[in-house]
Amino acid sequence: MSSLRISPQRLLNDLAELATFGGRDDGGVDRIAGSPADLASRTWLANRITAAGLESWTDPIGNVFGKQRGSRGPWLLTGSHTDTVPAAGRLDGAYGALAAIEVLRTLHEAGHPSAAALQTVAFWDEEGVLPTSNGGLVGSTALSVSEHIKEISGYVELHIEQGPRMEDAGLELAVVDGIVGVDRYLLVIRGEANHAGTTPMINRHDAGRAASKIAAHLWETADEVDETMVVNVGAMEFHPGVPNVVPGEAHLTVEFRAASEFALLAAGDRTLALTRRIGREQKCSVEVSRLSHKPVVRFDESYVDLIHQTCTRQGVPTGRLVSFAGHDASVISSKVPTAMLFVPSTGGISHSPAEHTDDAYLVQGAQVLLETLVEIEQTLPKPVYLH
Amino acid sequence: MSSLRISPQRLLNDLAELATFGGRDDGGVDRIAGSPADLASRTWLANRITAAGLESWTDPIGNVFGKQRGSRGPWLLTGSHTDTVPAAGRLDGAYGALAAIEVLRTLHEAGHPSAAALQTVAFWDEEGVLPTSNGGLVGSTALSVSEHIKEISGYVELHIEQGPRMEDAGLELAVVDGIVGVDRYLLVIRGEANHAGTTPMINRHDAGRAASKIAAHLWETADEVDETMVVNVGAMEFHPGVPNVVPGEAHLTVEFRAASEFALLAAGDRTLALTRRIGREQKCSVEVSRLSHKPVVRFDESYVDLIHQTCTRQGVPTGRLVSFAGHDASVISSKVPTAMLFVPSTGGISHSPAEHTDDAYLVQGAQVLLETLVEIEQTLPKPVYLH
Repeated sequence: MSSLRISPQRLLNDLAELATFGGRDDGGVDRIAGSPADLASRTWLANRITAAGLESWTDPIGNVFGKQRGSRGPWLLTGSHTDTVPAAGRLDGAYGALAAIEVLRTLHEAGHPSAAALQTVAFWDEEGVLPTSNGGLVGSTALSVSEHIKEISGYVELHIEQGPRMEDAGLELAVVDGIVGVDRYLLVIRGEANHAGTTPMINRHDAGRAASKIAAHLWETADEVDETMVVNVGAMEFHPGVPNVVPGEAHLTVEFRAASEFALLAAGDRTLALTRRIGREQKCSVEVSRLSHKPVVRFDESYVDLIHQTCTRQGVPTGRLVSFAGHDASVISSKVPTAMLFVPSTGGISHSPAEHTDDAYLVQGAQVLLETLVEIEQTLPKPVYLH
Repeated sequence: MSSLRISPQRLLNDLAELATFGGRDDGGVDRIAGSPADLASRTWLANRITAAGLESWTDPIGNVFGKQRGSRGPWLLTGSHTDTVPAAGRLDGAYGALAAIEVLRTLHEAGHPSAAALQTVAFWDEEGVLPTSNGGLVGSTALSVSEHIKEISGYVELHIEQGPRMEDAGLELAVVDGIVGVDRYLLVIRGEANHAGTTPMINRHDAGRAASKIAAHLWETADEVDETMVVNVGAMEFHPGVPNVVPGEAHLTVEFRAASEFALLAAGDRTLALTRRIGREQKCSVEVSRLSHKPVVRFDESYVDLIHQTCTRQGVPTGRLVSFAGHDASVISSKVPTAMLFVPSTGGISHSPAEHTDDAYLVQGAQVLLETLVEIEQTLPKPVYLH
């Protein structure tokens, strides 16, 4: 185990300075991928890397990398993204990207041999805010299909939890086993738009009533399948959507997240059955379409075990959990051994200016990232990949 | 009882010609108040009146009247509106306005003494499609507060039912006792917008789920109060309304229609209680606002009884019912004795190009309107109103 320490103040200063790019009066950040604030922050990031005596470059999609000058692959990659959602907090993504630079900088300054085996990355457009982003993970997806991925031996991403589970369980660190799969459905219910006064209740084909009944039942549907899965009806719209017309059509979106593919399939199957049953009961036709499927991601067991051991050695309260949010790590994990490390989010709040993690946890997380990367680099074999 | 007969072909031809103003390829009509089609149709209407040797004039708001030249009040008024909703049928309003002209024309041509006691009206903007129309009934409301109302002794409006109850009961005519009252509510549910993956289900303050549960229960709420009342949730919206964010706010509109004020009050009270209960259960705050209240209208008993007797004498299957749709008659009834006569709507369809009533029923309705008006004019005392 290394006795090297990162510089807490340098890391926290970097976080504060990055938050000025797109900074908001309420303490939050607007740094949507490709915005002037995002582009300016990438130049600043590259300058922070070169100011540390390291080499920085930006790939064609916009990912900003750092490494020791003259170092040769394969490299163990670490980082995260630096773009944000609108009205975001200052930690989501930024923390992992800057901690990566702090770790490499610390190792480089100490002349540590592992410095030559590391690369840092600030991914382009993880959040996918713009319609053209096709759901996000743009930079990591581009890396995963680039030539450069062949020079990467593994990936470790440090991130805030963005949920309350660590805080609730009193954990200061958590090793992430994997990322839940996400299935999105669009439910279209078609009834008959009609006069809301003159049409007797028993004659109605009320698409809105059917949609409401379906939405009201979906929590139970998810809970019957798997008590750890989550479901969200994020959007609901009635057409024509005026007070005095019985809704002729209703649209709702349903999103399931689960740690097993079987649970996702079962939830989809039960949603279809529920929708058909309530549609029939309300004399409406129904159409259930799966809009997207993000498969369940399992991280590399050697990485997960090694990170867990490293945390435990620090004597820090550490857990293992599944991430309910998507991350660049899920994309990269399809190509190289990958794992993630979480620090707690105060109150579980994220994607909000109120996003917060205590400085002590941020510093501790970055320090453990350093230990972890050195441990992986020094003890795990670098696999040979047949790309 | 008069042995005079209206001209079926002339009435049906007028209906067909009026339907060409704003006529659609699907057989429907777009003749929103104030549109070029609506304005042109009013000129055509005035010309139809003068072509019959009658006098026509348009009041400041846009109502088109007809009467015998030189006749002096008070007059018994009959008619309806000629504006439409978008993608309307050709009968809603138009039927009553043209039948009125056909009746007066018939009486005038026959030299019938009652012709001098009648006026016809084609009201301006009953439907209230434009936001500036403030819910419609614009022309009848303007008449009800004008000097001219002091010269009107009563009002009878012939209309299509716009519902299926007459057809279901095998009725060819129906005397309308009154018009249901209408209460509209806006329910605003406020929870907490949050990440749809990382927020555990038990920690959610899901405004959308609360709104869905409320909407799913409202039929039972209305049915508990009064089995004849109707309820509609016409609009529902979640905010921010994206698949991966737990809805932080949900809006829904609720409309109740009932034949008694007590039922409307009870339904509003139960809606508030339901909303508060489900809001508390889902850890959301709720706000229930009554957007509007249209009071229950009871038509004049002498008019209703006399119309019912007239229909019965014809040997036509006749019923009595409450109208679940609003009409110009409800406004005028606050000033002078008023009643309505309905003919059946095929399949109950209205506000649609598919709106239909068999020609035989249209002709029979207009004929009974003639008998009715003559009967009222000849047998009922003309009240003296203290305006």
